[in-house]
This record gives sequence, structure tokens and C-alpha cells, in this order.
Amino acid sequence: MPRALPPPVLPQRVHIIGSGLIGTSLAMALVRAGLVVSVADASPTNEALASDLSGARIGAGDPVDLVVVATPPDVTADVVTHALATWPNAVVTDVASVKEIVRAELDAKEVPGRERYVGGHPMAGREKSGAIAARIDLFEGRPWVISRTETTDPDGVALVRGIAEAAGAVVRLLSPTEHDAAVAAVSHVPQIAASLVAARLADLPEDAVGLSGTGVRDVTRIAGSDPVLWTQILTGNAGAVAAVLKALAADLGQIVDALDSLAAATTPDGQIEAPGARAVLARTIAAGNTGQARIPGKHGAAPAAYAVVTVLIPDEPGQLGRLFQDVGDAGINLEELNLEHNLGQPYGQLELSVLPAVAADLTDWLTARGWRVHD
Amino acid sequence: MPRALPPPVLPQRVHIIGSGLIGTSLAMALVRAGLVVSVADASPTNEALASDLSGARIGAGDPVDLVVVATPPDVTADVVTHALATWPNAVVTDVASVKEIVRAELDAKEVPGRERYVGGHPMAGREKSGAIAARIDLFEGRPWVISRTETTDPDGVALVRGIAEAAGAVVRLLSPTEHDAAVAAVSHVPQIAASLVAARLADLPEDAVGLSGTGVRDVTRIAGSDPVLWTQILTGNAGAVAAVLKALAADLGQIVDALDSLAAATTPDGQIEAPGARAVLARTIAAGNTGQARIPGKHGAAPAAYAVVTVLIPDEPGQLGRLFQDVGDAGINLEELNLEHNLGQPYGQLELSVLPAVAADLTDWLTARGWRVHD
Repeated sequence: MPRALPPPVLPQRVHIIGSGLIGTSLAMALVRAGLVVSVADASPTNEALASDLSGARIGAGDPVDLVVVATPPDVTADVVTHALATWPNAVVTDVASVKEIVRAELDAKEVPGRERYVGGHPMAGREKSGAIAARIDLFEGRPWVISRTETTDPDGVALVRGIAEAAGAVVRLLSPTEHDAAVAAVSHVPQIAASLVAARLADLPEDAVGLSGTGVRDVTRIAGSDPVLWTQILTGNAGAVAAVLKALAADLGQIVDALDSLAAATTPDGQIEAPGARAVLARTIAAGNTGQARIPGKHGAAPAAYAVVTVLIPDEPGQLGRLFQDVGDAGINLEELNLEHNLGQPYGQLELSVLPAVAADLTDWLTARGWRVHD
Repeated sequence: MPRALPPPVLPQRVHIIGSGLIGTSLAMALVRAGLVVSVADASPTNEALASDLSGARIGAGDPVDLVVVATPPDVTADVVTHALATWPNAVVTDVASVKEIVRAELDAKEVPGRERYVGGHPMAGREKSGAIAARIDLFEGRPWVISRTETTDPDGVALVRGIAEAAGAVVRLLSPTEHDAAVAAVSHVPQIAASLVAARLADLPEDAVGLSGTGVRDVTRIAGSDPVLWTQILTGNAGAVAAVLKALAADLGQIVDALDSLAAATTPDGQIEAPGARAVLARTIAAGNTGQARIPGKHGAAPAAYAVVTVLIPDEPGQLGRLFQDVGDAGINLEELNLEHNLGQPYGQLELSVLPAVAADLTDWLTARGWRVHD
């Protein structure tokens, strides 16, 4: 499949079907970008709310050149099919979080005009849903997958790229199969793991739940997700998710065996003999280190990819401003930063992550300007 | 076992053995509280650093009435044994994250004076370790488990409660068995789940890892933990962890079966028939909702005290300097900040944590200066 993206093209008129979080946020961003946008929703209330929030008109009215299907995933293929028939000259894209099943259904039914369908998946969301939760900057800096096959019309890809970039997203090109395997690992399996860990807390004594700290809070934060939506998502990506879960379950089985042998080998005087068992545990945590380090962004790759320069910041208003003015004057771009600010301590510790090549320069530059720096 | 806590009593002299994150942070907090504190560590460097950071003296010197063993868990019982013999009039407590195994070893070896041992576990930590990562507020608002049995000296419990509350922690009373079962569910199993999910990312194509969002980041944040330390922790609590993991593995098995049947039942035209399979998925997510709702406090206890204002930062040198100049001009002090910055993306999302009372002012101030802000 060709990997190169055609240059972005802005559509003249965009019609968005579905006025939930994604559809309404997209309408807001595209109206801001100066496009002519219309919205439609099965619920007149949502439709009117989306129009009020975004300034988009209600109902397609004029002929459109791009239709965005922003409905729940389980009806996406049907709505796409209907849109292809209703607007025979328009490109139709969607925002469903699974892609292979939509493509497969259109092909199996030999839906007329399906070459005008361009699969899409903006990787953006919030814990809150619905038009009321919409944000004009929901897609800023987020990946937006365009999922096409050999038969997909390149002009259609150009239009979808156009609106994705107009909304501030970063377009990535993946085949439907590549996309579904990727989201199984980076989205669907983490959701299941969070839910399974959280479910273990349901019957715990109050005293025990009271010991919860930031670790379990982070691991289970997304366990608050909507069961209905997630049942649709997981059903639509069952094969890819099952494949990842089976590999995870195999690792889990090894850990349980290792813990069983350690528990059985624990003698009252604290001596534990269980050859190889500790190695299984250490390998598991180490493998997690490796995988976690690959995640882009502040929780992931940065510590490995960047050099960290730590600066002590006096706990006074304006000090950070003075520091970043100095950093700005140095012309050095900060990749990431994190402030360790301890109440009751006179200093905060600010960690500046920069490209390794400029770390020494930054240290010298800031030291020369009176900052207490260590790297 | 009596559930009532004796009133707190402040010790005259506290000696802390082990100058890692916990030992050094505790020294800082207790010196601030006005206690006479001494530190000791197998490493003279760590010992000196802990003394510099906290103001505690090096070496016990005078007789002490409370000894805190803050060593790695695999040597805790031995160090406690030695401390009970070295200070025959002192109460000895520890900070090990597993309690039954320490108690069992002291009993099995019939260690003299073991009635003076009071098991403790401050539920506080960071991804970073060592004295250099110490924070004076590490224990603020955190649970500190006191784990005693019928034979434990009540006066000793009163002393441990004294230092725990002096460090800002909230004391909870649990038996060693209750404690170990609780931390298995709220700490050890979440760690394993995070590591297992992160390990699935290790061999993923770069395109796929690039789709990672905040969900997988949160689930895998603690997957960066130290394999050696965690092997010790899991080994020391093998039985309780295995019990929780087996229940989790059973749930996981049901999900894999449900996904397999859904995948097998998926026909090319998108119709999926697999009676009961969807219900298994929905029940899993719903059970996660229930368990997650029981977790006290908000996501990341400390930050919950602040209001978060999020600003979009163009990925250009000097932009952060300009922003913090504006923040400084506002005369508003930043409590914490985090930059969410993904490579290849035009914007970073900077989270500014401020006192709730000034959040709206900061939002207006920055918006008026052309920043894209949402709270």
C-alpha cells in the first residue's frame, strides 16, 4: 500500500453526522478554520446543541464534498453506506475507533461508491462525552489515523487530511489491519487491564481500599469508562484484542506460577528457595520498563531520549518567568519539563528535558545567570 | 486484636537506619517537627547526603527511644533483629511494604525483645528513589499502616503513631495479614498489571506506539519501577499477590473466550452473533466502574488540592519563556506544572496547577494575552 500522503485539501462544505463529543468538537474546529460546516444527529436536542456550540448549520442543505460519520461504532458502517448513496459525489469518512470491520462490511456488501470511503480515527477523547463536553481544541496535537486500502480514492485522503490538520491533528497513515492491531495494544488492552484491576477492589474491605495511592489511581483511572461504548469497541476489534490479551495472559500465568512456588518455598525463618522464580518476576518488571520507555510524551520516551537539567527554583512569584526568559534567550527548545514543588520547602526542583547535544550549553548558560543547576 | 489506637507520643530521639527515599524524607520531616534525629546507612555517601538534606546527625550517638528501619525489604528482618539487640530499651519499627513475612521471621527465630517491634508501612513513594529524591512532604496525607499483633507493646504503637502523624501521615491499624492482602490488591497487582500492559508495547511497530494517548500512559506510568525492588516486594508477599492475580486471571480468561467467540462469529457483512459474549465484556467494564468508584480521593492525591489550568504551547523556542513571563506578571505562584509534549506535534499541553482561588484569574489573564487556555 502506498505510504505517502497526498497534500492536504480543504473541502468546500463538510457535513458531520453525529453530534457527540467528537462530531461537535470537530464542527467547532472546522467552523473556526473558516469552512462551511453542517451537522445532523438522530437527536434534535444534540443537533441543536452542536449547532449552537459550533456555529455550524443544521442539516446538509447544499451538496457537500465531505461527509464525516461521527456515530457510535456499531452503526458506523450502516451510516457510511447510507451517506455514500445520499451524496454520490462526496467523500465519506468516519471516526470509529475500529477500522477493519467497517471496511470489511462495505466490501462484503459491495456497497456502491465505497471507493469514496476513507477510514479515519482521531485519537482524541475525554472521560466526559456528548456535545456538551465538546472542546474546540480536542484534536490539537493528537494523532488522526487515516486508514486506507489500495482502492481508496487519493483525492478523498487529501480531503480527510485537510480537515484533520485544520483541526490541529497530526495525520498518520495505517492500513485498517495495522490500525486495529495498534489500538488493541495501546488502547483496548490497557482499558481491559484497568477494568480488571479495578474490579479486584469491588469487594475489598474499606480499610484496604483506604490504602489506595497514586499508583492504583493512575492504573485504574480509565476504568470509569462507559460499558456500552466499550462493549461496542471491543466487539468490533475482538480478534486483535484477543491476540494481545493471550500474550498478556501467558505472561500472567508465568507470574502466578512463580509466586506460587515462592509462597510454597517460604520457610518460617524467612528463607525462600525457589530457583528461577525471582527471575520471572524481575523479567516481567524489566519488560515493562522497556515497553513503557517507548511511549512518546512525558510519561515515556523522554527520560531516555532527552538529557535532564535540574534547576533549583526559589519559591517566589516570577522566578519561573525569569528562568524561562533565560532559557528562551538561549534559543534552546525544551522538550519536556517537570516541577517538583514541595510545600514548606524554599525551593522547587525544575527538571528541563532537552536534546542531549545542548544540555551542557544550557547548564553553562543558566549557571552563568545565577541559577543553581545540576544535571 | 484491639482495634483502638493509643494516643500519639513523640519520641525524644529517633534513629533512622537506611538513607533511601523513605528514610531521608522521614528524617527531613521529623527534624522539621523539632525531634532529635540521627541517620545511618551502609553507604557513607548516602548517609552524608541524608544528613545534609535533613539536618539530622550521623550515627545514633546517644541512646534512642525509637529506631526506624528503612532498608530494602529483603534485609528488614535481619536489621530489625540487630536493632532490637543494639538498643535494648528502644522501640523498633520498619517501613517494609510487606509485614507478615517480617513478623513471621522474628517469631520463628524467637528474636529477643520482639515485643518491642512495631510493624509499620508508610504508603508513600515516588518513581525516583534514593536520598536525592527525598521530599519533606512525602508522607503528607498518606496512609501509614501500623501493623501489630496481640503481643505488640502499646507504648511502641504510640511512638510510631507519634512520628507518623508528625510527618503528616494518617495512621491506619491493620494486622500483618490484613495489610498484606490489602497492598496485594491496591499496590502489588496494579504494578504487575501495568508492567504486563507495558511489556506488550516492547515489540510494537513505531507507527503503533505513536498512537499512545493519555489512557495507556496512565495505566503504564508505574511500569517504570525498579525490577530489583519489586522482585523483593512481590517475593515477600507472594501468597497474597498470587491469590488476587488468580481471580484476575479468571476474569481475563472469560474475556478472551468472549472475544474469541465474537471474532469467530463475525460474518463478512458485519453481523456478529455470539450469545452472552457481549454481556461478559459489559460486566467486566461495569465491575471496573464499581471498583474504581471505591478509591478514595481524586486522581493523584496531592495535585487534587490545586486547580489545573491547561495552556497550549506552540512548539517554538521562547514560547515557554513568554508564557511564564506572563504568569510571573500576574503575580500568581505555580504549585506544580507538567508539559505534555509529543514529538511531531505542533503544540504542547502545559498544565499549570495553582491554588483554586486564583485559577479563574489566571485563565482570564493568559487568555487576554493571546494564550489558548482551558480549565
